[in-house]
Amino acid sequence: MPAEFEQYARPGEITPEITASKLLDTPIQVPSRLLMGPGPANAHPRVLAAQTLPLLGHMHPPFFTIMNEIQDGLKYLFQTSSKYVLLISGTGHAGMEAAIANMLEPGETIVVGNNGIWGARVTDLAARYGGNVVSLDTEAGGTLSLKDIQAALEQHKPTVLFLCQGESSTGAHQSLAGVAEACQVHGTVLVVDTVCSLGAVPFYGDAWGVDCMYSGSQKVISAPPGAAPFMLSERGLKKLLNRKTKVASYNFDLNLIGDYWGWFDKRSYHATGMISMWYGMREALAIISAEDRLVSVNTIKVPEGVNWAAVVKNAMDKYNVEIAGGLGPTAGKVWRVGIMGYNAKLENVELVIAAFKDGLKQQEFLQ
Amino acid sequence: MPAEFEQYARPGEITPEITASKLLDTPIQVPSRLLMGPGPANAHPRVLAAQTLPLLGHMHPPFFTIMNEIQDGLKYLFQTSSKYVLLISGTGHAGMEAAIANMLEPGETIVVGNNGIWGARVTDLAARYGGNVVSLDTEAGGTLSLKDIQAALEQHKPTVLFLCQGESSTGAHQSLAGVAEACQVHGTVLVVDTVCSLGAVPFYGDAWGVDCMYSGSQKVISAPPGAAPFMLSERGLKKLLNRKTKVASYNFDLNLIGDYWGWFDKRSYHATGMISMWYGMREALAIISAEDRLVSVNTIKVPEGVNWAAVVKNAMDKYNVEIAGGLGPTAGKVWRVGIMGYNAKLENVELVIAAFKDGLKQQEFLQ
Repeated sequence: MPAEFEQYARPGEITPEITASKLLDTPIQVPSRLLMGPGPANAHPRVLAAQTLPLLGHMHPPFFTIMNEIQDGLKYLFQTSSKYVLLISGTGHAGMEAAIANMLEPGETIVVGNNGIWGARVTDLAARYGGNVVSLDTEAGGTLSLKDIQAALEQHKPTVLFLCQGESSTGAHQSLAGVAEACQVHGTVLVVDTVCSLGAVPFYGDAWGVDCMYSGSQKVISAPPGAAPFMLSERGLKKLLNRKTKVASYNFDLNLIGDYWGWFDKRSYHATGMISMWYGMREALAIISAEDRLVSVNTIKVPEGVNWAAVVKNAMDKYNVEIAGGLGPTAGKVWRVGIMGYNAKLENVELVIAAFKDGLKQQEFLQ
Repeated sequence: MPAEFEQYARPGEITPEITASKLLDTPIQVPSRLLMGPGPANAHPRVLAAQTLPLLGHMHPPFFTIMNEIQDGLKYLFQTSSKYVLLISGTGHAGMEAAIANMLEPGETIVVGNNGIWGARVTDLAARYGGNVVSLDTEAGGTLSLKDIQAALEQHKPTVLFLCQGESSTGAHQSLAGVAEACQVHGTVLVVDTVCSLGAVPFYGDAWGVDCMYSGSQKVISAPPGAAPFMLSERGLKKLLNRKTKVASYNFDLNLIGDYWGWFDKRSYHATGMISMWYGMREALAIISAEDRLVSVNTIKVPEGVNWAAVVKNAMDKYNVEIAGGLGPTAGKVWRVGIMGYNAKLENVELVIAAFKDGLKQQEFLQ
């Protein structure tokens, strides 16, 4: 240590005051639960098993091979031939932030389809990134009509239109057909959230002309949380490359992330890839590539006079099954049952129905 | 589907054009490699095994118990009694962005200690977040003296001082003793990067008065990449709570992340926790809590006339061992050997030495 530091506390002179954790002396406790809520769903055992494979370096060619395989699986899942697909490191929220941070510049206008929680979240995020935010509100549980969308595009001529295909707080399913055609009249970039819908309901990236889309790993895809499937169309990429301002975030800068994923026909270090997580995603996509698709978040209206929370608690306590209440505008009004990925099996649906019946009988709503 | 959408392409009318991935038909290929570079290091088998445990919901009480255990382990690792510790979802770069996004407001001044790659990265990041950046440069391989630091604080009176404890591009070890005292004279917040040093060289969060610190999971801690250990001191928290502007990022907003980790004596949903990854981190911290500490990234000067890259390639091809060249200012000038976590074993060091000897003999540098 240089002499001038010596008058100050030196490592050898400090007695560690914080003792080793006592909590960590006991084994980790992870009860086995059937996750039939809006997500996470249980991960497929093959996905979890892949996470025990030995780590590779994030710049090793065998790891690049795995990244290529992931991209090939994403193209199928997104129904796109765009090469601009990758995983954002983080959950669906990270995908959302990457979409807004890259597609919107400060002072540009974004029209946000807002019929639950996720439109509101994008409104918050777009404001953080300096956007001029127009919230296109519709009632909770509703969706936007194409006429509403066309009128808003005509009035505001936004740079970006945001729609959520599957609003997990209400269970509403937003149609996307025809929206891109309306956007292109005004040079508007179409950004779509498919966090709780991708893989469960049809999504056609190319045929629907979606410019930017993000999803999540822990719902229909049946992997752990931590990787957001992401795509740009050629138009989306052009918007990125034509930015006048630097992307305000380093971690979410698609110029850099894309350059790690080979978008520009080379590989540059951006941040360390999430190695175990991506092994798992590779396996999840392989499973999807080999099977058909399912339907995901189901909302069930709570009948008058029924204590919804008691039904949820009884399902967990007695059956070890997670179902969920509403979120945001639907809080207290609905239950939400997720039938996703590895959990999408008849026996799980039967068990959820049994748990509902039992909970409703306890409240004498059913005989 | 509402009638007005019907004139446009409907799901049933679209023939999926992108066929299932052929690349994903084959099993995943992960060669077993000994990662003796600057990171990632191999993860401990107990850590990888924990990642196969079944998923819990991110708001389930048993998962909160695991988060509490992680925080207990972090306090020991950081040598802090601060309750403001957590994992940022993402790699060390995400920790860095969280530190800058929260500790610095637009227009505020940050002095960045810059003697390699990581100071330069913080300079880039702080500019993205609207900071007034002063780069305090020293030669690659060097460290800053306390006098240099005191003079810069006196001259610029910055809101934030950034130092990197372990500069992984050069192997330089920055002393931290006495720095906080100098900072506090000017009300400056001390932010420290310990991505490649934490757990290998002494770090005393409380005794050294560090206000904000971040690290990485995939180096000395011996977990996969994807979780950045993070702390704020009471002073760091005060800086956060006294911000005049909203944090520009949603994902990295510590007001929200902290509220999920119980900083404010409750738990609010921010983004889905990275469940498998955090199981692994819980185990990695349990292992650390039960053992002593080691030394991490070693830089070795490349002798005149030696082809460093051929030595690296020979080590990988013949011994299946990763060692690394320099990075940034040290590119072509040094090799970097990491001795981290699970890899820190005598037999691994012997193997690395054998690989070096063989590579140098091939170039007739050694007999």
